[in-house]
Amino acid sequence: MDAGPDTATRTGPLSREELAALDTWWRAANYLSVGQIYLMGNPLLREPLRPEHIKPRLLGHWGTTPGLNFVYAHLNRAIAARELDMMYVMGPGHGGPGPVAAAWLEGTYSEIYPDISRDADGMARLFTQFSFPGGIPSHVAPETPGSIHEGGELGYALSHAYGAAFDNPDLIVAAVVGDGEAETGPLATSWHSTKFVDPRRDGAVLPILHLNGYKIANPTVLARIEHEELEHLLRGYGHDPVFVEGSDPERMHQAFAAALDHCLDAILEIRRRARRDGVTERPRWPMIVLRSPKGWTGPKEVDGLPVEGYWRSHQVPFANARDDDSHRKILEEWLRSYRPEELFDDHGVPVPAIRDLHPAGERRMSANPHANGGPLVRDLALPDFRDYAVPVEARGTGSVESTRVLGTFLRDVMRENTSTFRVFSPDENNSNRLGPVLEATARTWNARILPDDDRLAPDGRVMEILSEHTCQGWLEGYLLTGRHGFFSCYEAFVHIVDSMFNQHAKWLRTTNGIDWRRPIPSLNYLLTSHVWRQDHNGFSHQDPGFIDHVVNKKADVIRVYLPPDANTLLSVADHCLRTRQYVNVIVAGKQPQLQYLDMDAAIVHCTKGIGIWDWAGTDQGAEPDVVLGCAGDVPTMETLAAVEILLEWFPDLRIRVVNVVDLMRLQDHTEHPHGLSDREFDSLFTTDKPVIFAYHGYPWLIHRLTYRRTNHDNIHVRGYKEEGTTTTPFDMCVLNQIDRFDLAMDVVDRVPRLHPISAYAREYLKNRLVEHHQYIRTHGEDMPDIRDWEWGRSGR
Amino acid sequence: MDAGPDTATRTGPLSREELAALDTWWRAANYLSVGQIYLMGNPLLREPLRPEHIKPRLLGHWGTTPGLNFVYAHLNRAIAARELDMMYVMGPGHGGPGPVAAAWLEGTYSEIYPDISRDADGMARLFTQFSFPGGIPSHVAPETPGSIHEGGELGYALSHAYGAAFDNPDLIVAAVVGDGEAETGPLATSWHSTKFVDPRRDGAVLPILHLNGYKIANPTVLARIEHEELEHLLRGYGHDPVFVEGSDPERMHQAFAAALDHCLDAILEIRRRARRDGVTERPRWPMIVLRSPKGWTGPKEVDGLPVEGYWRSHQVPFANARDDDSHRKILEEWLRSYRPEELFDDHGVPVPAIRDLHPAGERRMSANPHANGGPLVRDLALPDFRDYAVPVEARGTGSVESTRVLGTFLRDVMRENTSTFRVFSPDENNSNRLGPVLEATARTWNARILPDDDRLAPDGRVMEILSEHTCQGWLEGYLLTGRHGFFSCYEAFVHIVDSMFNQHAKWLRTTNGIDWRRPIPSLNYLLTSHVWRQDHNGFSHQDPGFIDHVVNKKADVIRVYLPPDANTLLSVADHCLRTRQYVNVIVAGKQPQLQYLDMDAAIVHCTKGIGIWDWAGTDQGAEPDVVLGCAGDVPTMETLAAVEILLEWFPDLRIRVVNVVDLMRLQDHTEHPHGLSDREFDSLFTTDKPVIFAYHGYPWLIHRLTYRRTNHDNIHVRGYKEEGTTTTPFDMCVLNQIDRFDLAMDVVDRVPRLHPISAYAREYLKNRLVEHHQYIRTHGEDMPDIRDWEWGRSGR
Repeated sequence: MDAGPDTATRTGPLSREELAALDTWWRAANYLSVGQIYLMGNPLLREPLRPEHIKPRLLGHWGTTPGLNFVYAHLNRAIAARELDMMYVMGPGHGGPGPVAAAWLEGTYSEIYPDISRDADGMARLFTQFSFPGGIPSHVAPETPGSIHEGGELGYALSHAYGAAFDNPDLIVAAVVGDGEAETGPLATSWHSTKFVDPRRDGAVLPILHLNGYKIANPTVLARIEHEELEHLLRGYGHDPVFVEGSDPERMHQAFAAALDHCLDAILEIRRRARRDGVTERPRWPMIVLRSPKGWTGPKEVDGLPVEGYWRSHQVPFANARDDDSHRKILEEWLRSYRPEELFDDHGVPVPAIRDLHPAGERRMSANPHANGGPLVRDLALPDFRDYAVPVEARGTGSVESTRVLGTFLRDVMRENTSTFRVFSPDENNSNRLGPVLEATARTWNARILPDDDRLAPDGRVMEILSEHTCQGWLEGYLLTGRHGFFSCYEAFVHIVDSMFNQHAKWLRTTNGIDWRRPIPSLNYLLTSHVWRQDHNGFSHQDPGFIDHVVNKKADVIRVYLPPDANTLLSVADHCLRTRQYVNVIVAGKQPQLQYLDMDAAIVHCTKGIGIWDWAGTDQGAEPDVVLGCAGDVPTMETLAAVEILLEWFPDLRIRVVNVVDLMRLQDHTEHPHGLSDREFDSLFTTDKPVIFAYHGYPWLIHRLTYRRTNHDNIHVRGYKEEGTTTTPFDMCVLNQIDRFDLAMDVVDRVPRLHPISAYAREYLKNRLVEHHQYIRTHGEDMPDIRDWEWGRSGR
Repeated sequence: MDAGPDTATRTGPLSREELAALDTWWRAANYLSVGQIYLMGNPLLREPLRPEHIKPRLLGHWGTTPGLNFVYAHLNRAIAARELDMMYVMGPGHGGPGPVAAAWLEGTYSEIYPDISRDADGMARLFTQFSFPGGIPSHVAPETPGSIHEGGELGYALSHAYGAAFDNPDLIVAAVVGDGEAETGPLATSWHSTKFVDPRRDGAVLPILHLNGYKIANPTVLARIEHEELEHLLRGYGHDPVFVEGSDPERMHQAFAAALDHCLDAILEIRRRARRDGVTERPRWPMIVLRSPKGWTGPKEVDGLPVEGYWRSHQVPFANARDDDSHRKILEEWLRSYRPEELFDDHGVPVPAIRDLHPAGERRMSANPHANGGPLVRDLALPDFRDYAVPVEARGTGSVESTRVLGTFLRDVMRENTSTFRVFSPDENNSNRLGPVLEATARTWNARILPDDDRLAPDGRVMEILSEHTCQGWLEGYLLTGRHGFFSCYEAFVHIVDSMFNQHAKWLRTTNGIDWRRPIPSLNYLLTSHVWRQDHNGFSHQDPGFIDHVVNKKADVIRVYLPPDANTLLSVADHCLRTRQYVNVIVAGKQPQLQYLDMDAAIVHCTKGIGIWDWAGTDQGAEPDVVLGCAGDVPTMETLAAVEILLEWFPDLRIRVVNVVDLMRLQDHTEHPHGLSDREFDSLFTTDKPVIFAYHGYPWLIHRLTYRRTNHDNIHVRGYKEEGTTTTPFDMCVLNQIDRFDLAMDVVDRVPRLHPISAYAREYLKNRLVEHHQYIRTHGEDMPDIRDWEWGRSGR
């Protein structure tokens, strides 16, 4: 099935008429693409091009666009012929003009944006708005109908496509992978998604590797390795590739149509064998390699330099069309080469041949319901999280792995939502104590299974691959097509997807302003194996900075929670699973830890998001001497321990303990919708008393969130300050001075009325730290009174 | 050459004696590895194991360790036999006990750490210190001799290995790739480094893909695809793989020795053909696939569950050896299975057979000079950066692409350092205007080259692949082996390597405390195509948050510079290229921009890092009415324009302009070595006057850096607040309220003595913004008086 360079043949599956129709549609899409990049007037070329018809700033990417349009035309033929439910993911999404042109040709664009009517006036506005102030972005974007894939950062086309396909058994996702994109790490490993898709319960992904040979300025690796090597590579990824290579449109139409027919036959045969015949062997999924010139059908040469087929086609092939008569002439010839007079009638409406090519209604890829997941979303059927409550006999006692408790809740969420909920993890599901979900379903696995394997199955819904990128990409695709998910990750290594988070947050933010995009389920992160308990791994695994990264994004799409124990974690998780259109970051430890709140108290506390823990403090409603703030499980424990130490020395000290679950409560309410008003903040933290704040992450974030508060100058924050190694849990606190003794010293230093005896207390506290230091270096573990310390046993 | 499962043969290249020696060394390394994980006493098992001999907290990773030791033993044989210059990169670096054991056996460990002598006492300390408070980390770490590769985050083994090999023609870097790590995106694409290595001028990388079958809790993808698929995949990456598969030590020794001989012969033959015969065709590099059991030679079964060959071997195979007699018995039997009495003499010194296996001196992999780049570093031969100065006729005039000027300097750095300096970029070198370097060298490219290609050659030293991960990994490997480099990247997408930056910064921080690690050249980033000028790409390409991410790391290893024009950029770049042991982040635009400082002034300004621009302000040494701070090229321009607008309305307003090049000058000197003292800060920003600060990135970073300053409450910061799309350059400023009119309004609002006429001024400024808004939506570009505005033409 290898057509080989220039061997694409005239003899193919297309009749003369079909071929002509395809080519007409393609010409129309290409014409509209060039028009978007260059024109702000004279859209139908009813008169010669004049400078004022050309945009003053030419911004956009032509190079990849004709290829995207070519594939679009062929997919349309197949959808119509086979009545397929098909989505289109464009990896090289900088080719934004292409899908916009297609949506306009299909009528979808005018349905969604009535001012961009499908006629000459609308075409004029279509052209002008592109990459124009007040208009639309130059890339495939949330504004583009039919897309779930922002065309900004490269690398996620395949993982998004698979995410869309999971649990959508009738769907086929055509995914164009650019040969530039193919060099990125995330893309390179996402080919292995072939081992995580089940032909029985999932849809299919049809990758189309588009070799157009060049990136911005360099050739691409996959276009320059030997044919045999490339075929090896793709077979190694689990695919059965078909090659379509050349540049002559007629031959290429025949070859691509044949290849597509072959692939769709193969996909339908795989489905039939899996679903009717029960074949469980992993199939070799078909795919297409399309090798065509970059900037195909564009100008061959400008100013004596080759353009079509070269990197010079990448963005705007020539930039002086407004001022340079010869360039403008090239542009006009280029536009006229598509014969617009054959494509659009006198009113600028596409001719029937074009309107007839595309499928109708929701079969149009620009109107495929999966590409706008919001309206498809159904609420999760959630069990009552209170049923999973941990009993708390006495506050600050016990030894519970909070995330394991969460696992039992997620297990039942999984049981009650068998086709709309998955959990994702980079080989850390069990390590993160979410193992209970495996009682409800297996791990997704379609590679070889051995007898001793634990809970692996093709139709499992716990998705684990040692690639944070792939997990995140799958999850994004799953959410964007209207389903729900949960991503658990080691806290330090979630930075691997910092940039993917950025793009998703920007997508959410933008879609908040797009009416026809309805809200989608939130992206829920559980960050665990966190900075304070990396006993096995040490310094390289210690980084709580994802929170800092997240809060740089728009307040209306981000939420951060630090539940201190199991019941608060359950309450927070239940809340997050019900939300839409957020990124929820939950940070919670997986190691055995003290429990503080029974379920009723946990619900109240989480609903407020922040609150005074009367039972832990001694202020009893009066103005305190000092406020101890805390956020995060380990800081909370150390804060309570510090209270006990302080009360031994200063029994009448009025201490207020304020625990923060919802971090954004700290910020001003004008900055974040969850933010406290100044009055509320002051009522918790006072306007003039010292505040010692023990925070899970980098301490300056608390300053950043509170710098406008009245009492900010009195807030002293302890947190992680990049001190760490493989040591004991308590020593991690000591190294970063967030331990109970240091916190107590901070109080002693800052409350004036303690000063008469503060020197003695300080001496004592310092000695305790010396004692700790000596003990761990001898025994290799924390002192028993630290290890076994419980607040609830102090008897207060 | 495929030995196939269980077909490894007794007939192999090893004599009886060689085989015995190899196996003895391997047993010793394994014994020492298990000892490190479990023991804190009785290291030579001279008495039965008792509970107090076992560490109370068992932390470490056994699973991958015996495989790493096996390979180490065989590499040693080859090094000795062939007198090779060889380094060892361990992708599964959580197998920390292995290389520590090897270094101790080779004597290097005791040379570096004299208290860990090569005898029974030293062995006792060797065991105890591992993963113990005050001891060494559980992973391969900076503390481990012979390593440049922290064993924390997975994915960078191959890119580090190639980075080490570039420009080291005699070096062979053996790189073990774990099959877990192989699932990560960065690793998956780094195989394509085969197209970027030149057998003439570079060393060779010998990848050893170690299939031990399991990750933490899951099987690995590459171990569970069909043999044929795996072979396809590796051939697709450009390799010629040899398979060694099995578990019987004797057969495996023979098979691996044969495979290694074959690969080394092939590498030497490739070198010979390239260097002597001038063969330029890209070779298919040999590699080894080693399939061996996870936790090889460990206990077969514990508590009735299989351990050797399963994921249960991943960390500590059984954890109750201290308290559970039967577990302790298993441990003792396991340790004795290595027959320690044959391995160490009465004093605990390794027997001669072991000492004879490893090569001597710097041939020992644990002592290979390349693995400790610091002592190898030679200063760059730097041309005088002043020779590249841009003439500045009048301050605030001109239209210069500053990064292109930098490109001319880097071009000559490249010319003068032909084997110790490379530049790296993800296909953005020309886009970032560093094209001039291509006058000095080509792009590195060893795949197919076509006649119209632009500056591609196998021995080029501009390294471009569309993978930020691979660029960063190569560069890290290059720096860690003592060379110099420069990484240019789109500002938004450098977040792709956030996590890699973390690890490198942690490495630098840790090595600052390790005497025998000498300082290495700094990692220099140029972030360009920045947030304010993403004309082609819009919202997805706008994120200035890498600076925020960087400043979370220890102050002693990070530096951030925002030079506002070409001459300051040259001065900063020259400085950065001379530094050691930092991560330098330089943010500078690539679009034509105003120039402010001639070279003499630029040098003075950059040396101070922050300063009053007298010529731009009107305070003339007196106390100002308002301070306008600025950091970054676009904010600086808008600030100066705001000054002009203000002076039109308020000619006697005393404005002070403070420009910041070295961002960390803002921080307190107790927090960052570059930080200003409070007195210095106050002398610039006053103690009570309003400060309007226009900052390149997210505004809250300025608050974070200055929250302790006396005048902090009066500092009002403008910056990027996640507003953006594809629009005009000035409109980007307007959307984020950092434009000249908004800045002027900020001043008007905050200087009390302006209030009498501030309402009129405000009205005027608002009208200008409305006018702007209307203009760009009609014309698609900024108003001429914005586009062509120059400070220097105002005539002041």
